[in-house]
Amino acid sequence: MLVNGKASRTIWPEQGSQGELLVGILDQTRLPHAVETRQILDVAAMAEAIRSMQVRGAPLIGAAAAWGLALAMQADASDQALQQAVSQLAATRPTAVNLHWALRRMQLHLQPLNAAERFAAAKGEATALCEEDVDINHRIGLQGLALIEAVAKQKPGEAVQVMTHCNAGWLGTVDWGTAMAPLFLAQQQGIDVHVWVGETRPRFQGALTAWECRENGVPATVVIDSAAGHLMQRGEVDLFICGCDRVAANGDVANKIGTLSKAITAQTYGVPVYVATPTPTIDWSLSDGAAIPIEQRSQAEVLTAFGQHAGQSLEVPLYAEGTKAVNYGFDVTPAEFVTAYVTEHGVFDDLNALKSNLKPA
Amino acid sequence: MLVNGKASRTIWPEQGSQGELLVGILDQTRLPHAVETRQILDVAAMAEAIRSMQVRGAPLIGAAAAWGLALAMQADASDQALQQAVSQLAATRPTAVNLHWALRRMQLHLQPLNAAERFAAAKGEATALCEEDVDINHRIGLQGLALIEAVAKQKPGEAVQVMTHCNAGWLGTVDWGTAMAPLFLAQQQGIDVHVWVGETRPRFQGALTAWECRENGVPATVVIDSAAGHLMQRGEVDLFICGCDRVAANGDVANKIGTLSKAITAQTYGVPVYVATPTPTIDWSLSDGAAIPIEQRSQAEVLTAFGQHAGQSLEVPLYAEGTKAVNYGFDVTPAEFVTAYVTEHGVFDDLNALKSNLKPA
Repeated sequence: MLVNGKASRTIWPEQGSQGELLVGILDQTRLPHAVETRQILDVAAMAEAIRSMQVRGAPLIGAAAAWGLALAMQADASDQALQQAVSQLAATRPTAVNLHWALRRMQLHLQPLNAAERFAAAKGEATALCEEDVDINHRIGLQGLALIEAVAKQKPGEAVQVMTHCNAGWLGTVDWGTAMAPLFLAQQQGIDVHVWVGETRPRFQGALTAWECRENGVPATVVIDSAAGHLMQRGEVDLFICGCDRVAANGDVANKIGTLSKAITAQTYGVPVYVATPTPTIDWSLSDGAAIPIEQRSQAEVLTAFGQHAGQSLEVPLYAEGTKAVNYGFDVTPAEFVTAYVTEHGVFDDLNALKSNLKPA
Repeated sequence: MLVNGKASRTIWPEQGSQGELLVGILDQTRLPHAVETRQILDVAAMAEAIRSMQVRGAPLIGAAAAWGLALAMQADASDQALQQAVSQLAATRPTAVNLHWALRRMQLHLQPLNAAERFAAAKGEATALCEEDVDINHRIGLQGLALIEAVAKQKPGEAVQVMTHCNAGWLGTVDWGTAMAPLFLAQQQGIDVHVWVGETRPRFQGALTAWECRENGVPATVVIDSAAGHLMQRGEVDLFICGCDRVAANGDVANKIGTLSKAITAQTYGVPVYVATPTPTIDWSLSDGAAIPIEQRSQAEVLTAFGQHAGQSLEVPLYAEGTKAVNYGFDVTPAEFVTAYVTEHGVFDDLNALKSNLKPA
């Protein structure tokens, strides 16, 4: 999508001065205040970029892990190095399943090969995985666009009001985004849409969503997460759409913490809840969401405001000394609160319908 | 309640060097980082203290307005000055009904008097109103304590897990608090309680609640507002209790924005929702909550992080330039999501039961 009017992706391969592979990323910890790119030189740096959320969002974490393995194979393509790099990347963040999906896919591809073939093969497979992500998201966008068009027809002359949570935009993927892809397409088609961007405490990923909306011409208004009830109660939301970090086989959805309350509230007020679900985010091995590991992050993210002031990085305490916090990164929304899953294969009320639609692998 | 181990109130009369009335307040915009008091010299300063939230919380706003009228009468006790001071104070914040209740009560008391009697009468009535607030809150505390004791009996050896939202503690009243009074009493009785403090974006009033818990020995943990669903789903919350800014005759509750989503989520997971309701907060003139005016505050409260750094007040932008936000201060929780109202007259499932219990005025 657009950054300062120019098309960009979130991750891309580059060639170093010695002809070596480098991986470029948009540093999302600097957005929306500064557009800065980083060059990732090795697998350790990629693991740190994932852990520190310089790259974030379930699909992008998968893509970053794939490129991380390519960097690892460049340095050492032995069986041991492959296994070690997979372990190192797998340990970065626990909730998003795309990370494990991408690592497994890369490993299945690389393991049978000779060490001499692995680096080239890893580059090829990481490239393919990224192109597939872009394609999947574009298809999700087209499926979601039809949902938006249906609402638009019912309220001619008025904007379709969409609420989202966190950033499931193009910044969370290689391009297009999952939940945001339908909105970018709607805007391109001249459909009148407006996005209620949930700020998404504690890390304010809503700032990323608001930024990508601004850069791509989608009207958006930020609200605190707690405002969802008020807006839905007053009829100000036509549909809620979010992404997901892992979906269990029964349709339970792990996503950024706060999704659960918003989905429950939406159901209470008759607002449909759509989960933009690339099929690589479905963990068919889990019967339900209870077993999805929920990441606990540092309490400093809750207790401290981070910012930039006069060129200086600041941490400003919000609480009195000695205050305790817990910081769960995700929650699990039971399938009963999900109206439908918007996938690259279509919109499905439940995952059984999707499963029977998928060709056997 | 306690501040640095010493009993304190949030508002109190003082005598100036010329024997004149001054009103002392705890400046809540400086908490929890600094305990600072301010001396309010005239009605304009009191109006500004309410508007800027140096004093906040529905019962305390009422008390502050009463003292504001006393200051006004000290300067000029004419009919015109009385009327003007009432208008000035009434215009500070729209949602909490206690403001209007206190002003009406003061006006009814002062209007029939000669100008020469009004200042002394205003001091007396403001004092009485504050003492009544303390008494009401203590009684609410005793009623709520019984609810906590009932839970404690059902889970011996485990802490009673209470979630609250915003600050309905002693800082929002003259003393004791509404929703927090039962917790202070439970702690004093040696009952094992733990409070999940919702941070309460955008102004982080949870920091006030966490601070008063710390100062008064009540174990507390801060969570983002979006964590309520996750905690309730996992059985980590025994009861939810909050205060209120205005309750309609049918039991609809206007309270800090976010209460609605938490109450809906609580009902979904079988967590009882108690609203600590001093009867002066009930607006019997409103048949339901739809007509309660919802304050919209500055979008800067959402888009900017405020803090102190190296002795300097900072405003750190969270969003890219040009980002829009809306900032509703309150929402209305329909009576159907309220398990019971904890009042100074008892705990009532609905307000009709309370009304028939009240003696005719």
